Amino acid sequence: MNRVAIGVDIGGTNTAIGVVDTEGQVLIKGSIPTPKHGDVNLYIEELAKAIEDMIESVKRLTDNVEYLGIGIGAPNGNYYRGSIEYAPNLSFKGIIPFVDLLKEKFPQMKAVVLTNDANAAAIGEMIYGGAKNMKDFVMYTLGTGVGSGIVVNGEMVYGHDGFAGECGHTMLIPNGRLCGCGSKGHVEAYCSAPGMKRTAFEILVRDNATDSLLANKSFNELDSKMIFDAAQQGDRVALEVFEQTGKWLGQALADTVHHTSPEAIFLFGGPTAAGELLFKPVRESMEAHLLPIFKNKVKVLPSRLKPGDAAIIGASALVHKELAK
Amino acid sequence: MNRVAIGVDIGGTNTAIGVVDTEGQVLIKGSIPTPKHGDVNLYIEELAKAIEDMIESVKRLTDNVEYLGIGIGAPNGNYYRGSIEYAPNLSFKGIIPFVDLLKEKFPQMKAVVLTNDANAAAIGEMIYGGAKNMKDFVMYTLGTGVGSGIVVNGEMVYGHDGFAGECGHTMLIPNGRLCGCGSKGHVEAYCSAPGMKRTAFEILVRDNATDSLLANKSFNELDSKMIFDAAQQGDRVALEVFEQTGKWLGQALADTVHHTSPEAIFLFGGPTAAGELLFKPVRESMEAHLLPIFKNKVKVLPSRLKPGDAAIIGASALVHKELAK
Repeated sequence: MNRVAIGVDIGGTNTAIGVVDTEGQVLIKGSIPTPKHGDVNLYIEELAKAIEDMIESVKRLTDNVEYLGIGIGAPNGNYYRGSIEYAPNLSFKGIIPFVDLLKEKFPQMKAVVLTNDANAAAIGEMIYGGAKNMKDFVMYTLGTGVGSGIVVNGEMVYGHDGFAGECGHTMLIPNGRLCGCGSKGHVEAYCSAPGMKRTAFEILVRDNATDSLLANKSFNELDSKMIFDAAQQGDRVALEVFEQTGKWLGQALADTVHHTSPEAIFLFGGPTAAGELLFKPVRESMEAHLLPIFKNKVKVLPSRLKPGDAAIIGASALVHKELAK
Repeated sequence: MNRVAIGVDIGGTNTAIGVVDTEGQVLIKGSIPTPKHGDVNLYIEELAKAIEDMIESVKRLTDNVEYLGIGIGAPNGNYYRGSIEYAPNLSFKGIIPFVDLLKEKFPQMKAVVLTNDANAAAIGEMIYGGAKNMKDFVMYTLGTGVGSGIVVNGEMVYGHDGFAGECGHTMLIPNGRLCGCGSKGHVEAYCSAPGMKRTAFEILVRDNATDSLLANKSFNELDSKMIFDAAQQGDRVALEVFEQTGKWLGQALADTVHHTSPEAIFLFGGPTAAGELLFKPVRESMEAHLLPIFKNKVKVLPSRLKPGDAAIIGASALVHKELAK
């Protein structure tokens, strides 16, 4: 019998769904648009239909499958209440009792579990990835935003209210750049993919760098992939973006080390594809900011989750973690 | 039978020792100088002698006492290894296997446990104080430095290496004031008692405030108690010191909330005697820096540990926490 979990990753644009086995292999996957209509009951109908279709597809291939549950990664996902609360990039407003609504559709599932997307990624790393043998680690996800998940003593830190692990919204530069959350100077405004774009333009402006490859793209066109490509061609501005982003991120990681003293911090997301271009300055800056008692002890590692499937895999891992309790 | 633990608090100048019952009452206490001679074996002899003398004193009062163990709070104390490691303000250099050395003197004790002083205070708050019914809270200790202890899910966070909870050395203002640890801009350089003194002089300089009561003290004379006294007399500079310290500390607390989402943060130490003069700006600033999902949820409370005895009480609580495992 193949014991599988269904992973659901709710993004601002799409909802990815996959059936994942206990080894973290995605057997089948698909996606539906995350609606803009704001009607959560309608969305639950659409999502349940997509999950049922996927279960049917699996059935046509094999009967030898046991479904353990559904794991959901969602922005502002609350583990304790199974709710999505005031997610700024979703059309559903207020507090949505998402797990309860989905459970009604799938009463046969042993576990329906929800948390925020970065926590799901951390649990994915713990169940299937590079943190398999670690009890204390942190996951930073770099994408449109900067998310994080903190694991202490083998357990996800949810905190008193279920929202722990928002390191992307710790202070990096007081009164600095406007952050997506409305505050100023947060890590996310500097170390996310859009943050890197902003840094590129900051350097273009400072140096009037008309000779940079990045000088030919509009503010809305430029993305972190283009900065990476330019850096590989030796573009001075692009190289400095990675250097500076690494410095900032390393400072943020040091603050996190000073909180929970992890064995390793994993970095996940698009910008990490740049490898040492990013990791080298991150490590150097983190070390420079650490107290002597922490120096040369904390690893900074790339996530071992497969980029395209990581969100689904992480969400499915929630189920395994829950049933292991 | 009165079940007691011995609490030892190792400070840069003095080592306080006390016998504490299960209610957190100090039955008897004393202190010896923390030596400058750098010979840890000699210090262990002196400490063991002081503890034995104290046990003898108790015996003269009553036979009805069971000693559960010895708890030690020490700078750079490592819980896992029972060691004091590279403590900058002690004369013992390198890594000192303190628990092993003390156990040799007291083989009859069920538990000899050591952690850093702020962690000990947090455990004291959990066992005897205001955090008795809390599973997720943080303790900030404000004194010569700024220490912290983080509790998640009812357990002290020690982290992978046993040194977790150094929030005083997270970044407050990049490239800011020199911190005691040698880095720049840390919370400790602003929110400790000496940090408040530095802030007072910063304001004196900025405003050329010759009319302030604080203008008559030298840099080495002025302390946080004098600033409090001046604030109570309405001194404008002193009032601004509390306002500004609160703003800074509130920013630091928000970063901590964004890590572990505690139910409450307790403040402990000399400067907290100022009450609302400090707590009000701290709360306002923390709330202003929190993500919407955390707003109006996290309490900022004064420690309920008795100021003079808190370090001994906290150290003794280590024993109760250890034996409850």
